[in-house]
Amino acid sequence: MRIGVLTSGGDCPGLNAVIRSIVHRGTDVHGDEIVGIEDGFLGLIEGRARTVSHDDVTGLLTLGGTVLGSARVRRDRIEQAVLECRALAADLGIDALIAIGGEGTLTAAGMFSDAGLPVVGVPKTIDNDIDATDVTFGFDTAVHVATEAIDRLKTTAESHQRVMVVELMGRHTGWITLTAGMAGGAHGILIPEKPFDIEAVARLVEERFRRGKKFAIIAVAEGARPMPGTLLFDHGGLDQYGHQTFGGIGNKLARELEGILGTEARPVILGHTQRGGCPTARDRVLATRFGWHAVEAVHKGAFGHFTALRGTEVELLPIADGVRELKTVPEYRWLESEAVL
Amino acid sequence: MRIGVLTSGGDCPGLNAVIRSIVHRGTDVHGDEIVGIEDGFLGLIEGRARTVSHDDVTGLLTLGGTVLGSARVRRDRIEQAVLECRALAADLGIDALIAIGGEGTLTAAGMFSDAGLPVVGVPKTIDNDIDATDVTFGFDTAVHVATEAIDRLKTTAESHQRVMVVELMGRHTGWITLTAGMAGGAHGILIPEKPFDIEAVARLVEERFRRGKKFAIIAVAEGARPMPGTLLFDHGGLDQYGHQTFGGIGNKLARELEGILGTEARPVILGHTQRGGCPTARDRVLATRFGWHAVEAVHKGAFGHFTALRGTEVELLPIADGVRELKTVPEYRWLESEAVL
Amino acid sequence: MRIGVLTSGGDCPGLNAVIRSIVHRGTDVHGDEIVGIEDGFLGLIEGRARTVSHDDVTGLLTLGGTVLGSARVRRDRIEQAVLECRALAADLGIDALIAIGGEGTLTAAGMFSDAGLPVVGVPKTIDNDIDATDVTFGFDTAVHVATEAIDRLKTTAESHQRVMVVELMGRHTGWITLTAGMAGGAHGILIPEKPFDIEAVARLVEERFRRGKKFAIIAVAEGARPMPGTLLFDHGGLDQYGHQTFGGIGNKLARELEGILGTEARPVILGHTQRGGCPTARDRVLATRFGWHAVEAVHKGAFGHFTALRGTEVELLPIADGVRELKTVPEYRWLESEAVL
Amino acid sequence: MRIGVLTSGGDCPGLNAVIRSIVHRGTDVHGDEIVGIEDGFLGLIEGRARTVSHDDVTGLLTLGGTVLGSARVRRDRIEQAVLECRALAADLGIDALIAIGGEGTLTAAGMFSDAGLPVVGVPKTIDNDIDATDVTFGFDTAVHVATEAIDRLKTTAESHQRVMVVELMGRHTGWITLTAGMAGGAHGILIPEKPFDIEAVARLVEERFRRGKKFAIIAVAEGARPMPGTLLFDHGGLDQYGHQTFGGIGNKLARELEGILGTEARPVILGHTQRGGCPTARDRVLATRFGWHAVEAVHKGAFGHFTALRGTEVELLPIADGVRELKTVPEYRWLESEAVL
Repeated sequence: MRIGVLTSGGDCPGLNAVIRSIVHRGTDVHGDEIVGIEDGFLGLIEGRARTVSHDDVTGLLTLGGTVLGSARVRRDRIEQAVLECRALAADLGIDALIAIGGEGTLTAAGMFSDAGLPVVGVPKTIDNDIDATDVTFGFDTAVHVATEAIDRLKTTAESHQRVMVVELMGRHTGWITLTAGMAGGAHGILIPEKPFDIEAVARLVEERFRRGKKFAIIAVAEGARPMPGTLLFDHGGLDQYGHQTFGGIGNKLARELEGILGTEARPVILGHTQRGGCPTARDRVLATRFGWHAVEAVHKGAFGHFTALRGTEVELLPIADGVRELKTVPEYRWLESEAVL
Repeated sequence: MRIGVLTSGGDCPGLNAVIRSIVHRGTDVHGDEIVGIEDGFLGLIEGRARTVSHDDVTGLLTLGGTVLGSARVRRDRIEQAVLECRALAADLGIDALIAIGGEGTLTAAGMFSDAGLPVVGVPKTIDNDIDATDVTFGFDTAVHVATEAIDRLKTTAESHQRVMVVELMGRHTGWITLTAGMAGGAHGILIPEKPFDIEAVARLVEERFRRGKKFAIIAVAEGARPMPGTLLFDHGGLDQYGHQTFGGIGNKLARELEGILGTEARPVILGHTQRGGCPTARDRVLATRFGWHAVEAVHKGAFGHFTALRGTEVELLPIADGVRELKTVPEYRWLESEAVL
Repeated sequence: MRIGVLTSGGDCPGLNAVIRSIVHRGTDVHGDEIVGIEDGFLGLIEGRARTVSHDDVTGLLTLGGTVLGSARVRRDRIEQAVLECRALAADLGIDALIAIGGEGTLTAAGMFSDAGLPVVGVPKTIDNDIDATDVTFGFDTAVHVATEAIDRLKTTAESHQRVMVVELMGRHTGWITLTAGMAGGAHGILIPEKPFDIEAVARLVEERFRRGKKFAIIAVAEGARPMPGTLLFDHGGLDQYGHQTFGGIGNKLARELEGILGTEARPVILGHTQRGGCPTARDRVLATRFGWHAVEAVHKGAFGHFTALRGTEVELLPIADGVRELKTVPEYRWLESEAVL
Repeated sequence: MRIGVLTSGGDCPGLNAVIRSIVHRGTDVHGDEIVGIEDGFLGLIEGRARTVSHDDVTGLLTLGGTVLGSARVRRDRIEQAVLECRALAADLGIDALIAIGGEGTLTAAGMFSDAGLPVVGVPKTIDNDIDATDVTFGFDTAVHVATEAIDRLKTTAESHQRVMVVELMGRHTGWITLTAGMAGGAHGILIPEKPFDIEAVARLVEERFRRGKKFAIIAVAEGARPMPGTLLFDHGGLDQYGHQTFGGIGNKLARELEGILGTEARPVILGHTQRGGCPTARDRVLATRFGWHAVEAVHKGAFGHFTALRGTEVELLPIADGVRELKTVPEYRWLESEAVL
């Protein structure tokens, strides 16, 4: 078979490992030809693709990013492409498509599948917010990077008797912040799922100081928000270019805590280092398994499905099941950590 | 309550993180006194223990090994201790015990529990061979260390046109070797669950050479064995002190491949670096959750149970269920990798 | 002898390794008593100190920060302390002092030495800006952390066709940015020693794009500045709390480049992760050697001197020689990299 | 100019970074054509070479090994090639040669240079044993890997009350072992430059045990040897294939210590992981600088010279000066560590 592959959405460690795995399984075992489509759905629409051979994927297991590229496509162009999807597939000469991406990509994949293009989805997000799979590749790497940063910040905070506010990725869900916060031993963990009380954060720090501890680490997800009414962040905001990093929650929280506590509080905004670079061993294995199962799904004709980790097994689930809703941190998980405020 | 804690068996990254978590949850939330028992069951028998406070566990999240120590105890002394367990608990003044250890420890914990000492178990093994839990802490760290080593060996092998045989831990199960082998992109993976054919290993290398690839990485579990009849390892063996590292499978396999292929084949025995040092973020979180749930189990009276990860949740399972049999790599897992020979 | 030790100034990986080394050499070999003075010169003034034994320094080799603490002291209090230094030393019962710190600390150490307190200095700065020593401990760790970040950012930038602006530490000197920029393969490197032309930065990016490269990494020191007249950064600035991280050079440069290029440019501000955490092997060894030589200097009576690495040897130099001027990046070094603009 | 480049000798992190740097400086700045010669002097003799462009070196900064390959050549073939060197250069169409390698390579480079082939040398060895340069690239990476291993082993040793003997690379010199031993806090360090007394090693361990420390780490260079007469290693030895890893000094020492102490002593042989993989930031920068200076040397006509780091500067020295003798660890260096026995 000729199988098209595309990656779509934000960067995520493990994308290249999926591509490599698809090529290994497809070409070496099934005799498929793997067609790499450039820049996600844009390449599908514009007919930009190239054959990817076994030799082409040498070294991809450890390489961050995606060699196929990824670009944003406006929704109306996607919808138009869905209508023409059989023709687009014919132009590229592909019999089936493996689409690797986040919620939006999987939704689009479902639409293509419904419209007659045989598609298998592979979920991808560092945020771990896709329902129906226990975990996505990229998440473990993001947590690894964030935890290393917290490890480093701890000694600095301790030596200088200060509060460190670390802002981690997660606009809508707190998975990275909860996990890296627990792994790094953050004293306060603030996630979007649980609006926080700035006074409670300040009290936590004060109690630590009273117990003779001279520092505190607060891990805050970029999407964490104060409880309604408890706090008005009236300074800062987005700049003319709309950069999230200016006056984000980390900066605001640090300033607010300084005001309440009269102690130095420093914000650290980890940013894009969390989503790039060499994947952890766990992410490489999960990505490799997803790629393997995606090829098998194509050969089984399990279109309209996507790969998902359930317990220790990779299963194929209907795409609709995976994208119904965002997987947020459930209450029982944050109750397991006293640091979640 | 006064809760005793002991660690038993081989070293495993995350042991200290469990201890820290037990102290945090027990003392800070429940007002318990946590009694650290030294050197595993030996300290229980000999009445060696000390109170472990919140301050005592500072820094333990990232520290490998176990601050409580661990020692081997003869089976007959354990059996004797089981008979006297109520008295031993009374001597230490503990109301319940949390025992952190591998299969043997959990089995002993079950015996103590049956004999009237309230025990909760926490499973621990870098080998990931405990049934009933999806994974154990320590495993991810071992895989991380082994994968980093394979990553480094690859470039050396490539530059010098040679075969590298990496021997990884796993006497009875191939979890570390399969996972690190997949993560590192090993070309051949040999595990105890699937006796290997030395000729098939040699053919794999020859085929790579024919395709112009100038090197190969073979990951082999220390417990991997050739298929009966296919190979007689007639050189080497244990030395007078019984060291496994002399003439282990890695060394033998390298020599055998050199003989067959006429190409340089170098053995690398990773050894104890796989079981020590700072745990990965994932292992720290799993250890922390296990500690939290163990304390809750004590307060719920769920004795004779142990903590287990099932999917994304930590559950309490009867000890008997977890130690019935060794969790070996199932066939569906090794079929997911073409490298498993 | 009774030797006081203090750490002063900002956090720096390797401080604890120096303390450990002083204790090992002093107590084990010379039979000294090492007196750890808390919070730098503040502890000297306030008489806060404790004996530090061999057992107390267990584990310090790999621990970031300083177990002795560090605090800022106003200049007038230092000057007053210099006048009373013999009495202060007598109060603490110390015969000599080893002061570990940056330029300011060494200057103060020289003043104390001139006033009759026998002092030996150990230079410390992640910025590597102390003249007379080839390198300081802490610098290699800062470069290591910054390089890892650039490594990770590269794949993200590549996949998404964007410019990444990484702001690294260095208010007055460009050592970290030049070194990490070269190690990470940054395409543009901007340092305080060489005012940059924003148009030249934009041209560099445009030329890369013309050659088919879809991304660029610009490493910029926090103290880098545009050439006079070429650019007016008229947006942004310090906020009411004076945070450097708001509207710093990284943010400004990214916005400016977006304006010129019409391409996405993302700022990443590494911040304090560069100055905390476990030191690299090189920094541990240099810190250990400095500690060893500082103790020897005390026993040789080489007061008013500080330890310095010259080539491969540690030498003792007069403090005045080391703090005469800031060690900036010399022209011959930045000429070695085409990336320095 | 057309400049040939070859890499020769054992693997060493940073080789690819030198190649990349030569291409960047040569093609981008001087308009040179860089000709990559395959498999070291073998490719020179057999006329195997290819042009290496700017795009060809993308990603090489972080890649271990050498993309040009490296092979052993018999001495007589080298000597023959020296006689024909002008013809060989003419066949390849090269005006000058940059030879990257260890002592043997530099010696050969000197012979070619004397015979009329314009050659510039770049020193390379993880062992750091080339005289006349303060340090070579690859060494820092080897030390980094070895130190990480010692860090991990420490906690295992501590938890289990045992002696760990770590055998590190260094057949003739102890640089890696001294440096990683100091960085990792090894309690005993044994190097080839200083024959050791096995009884002194045993006493060190016994004294630690007496002081209540329950473990010890001994770092031993593969070329370390006992003092004449103090010890007869009468068991073990090389096997029929001549493998150094069987019955090497690490294994022997561990067995010997067990015999003397009656305590468990485990050998860990790090092996080839020390010489492969991604170079440290420091090695990348040194390799990049060496490549830059090698190209400049060619254009200045400084043939018969090699690049060397002296203090903070890269200098060009006559090849004869660099290979006169092996740079061993001088006495003043091992006196700086009490652990060297």
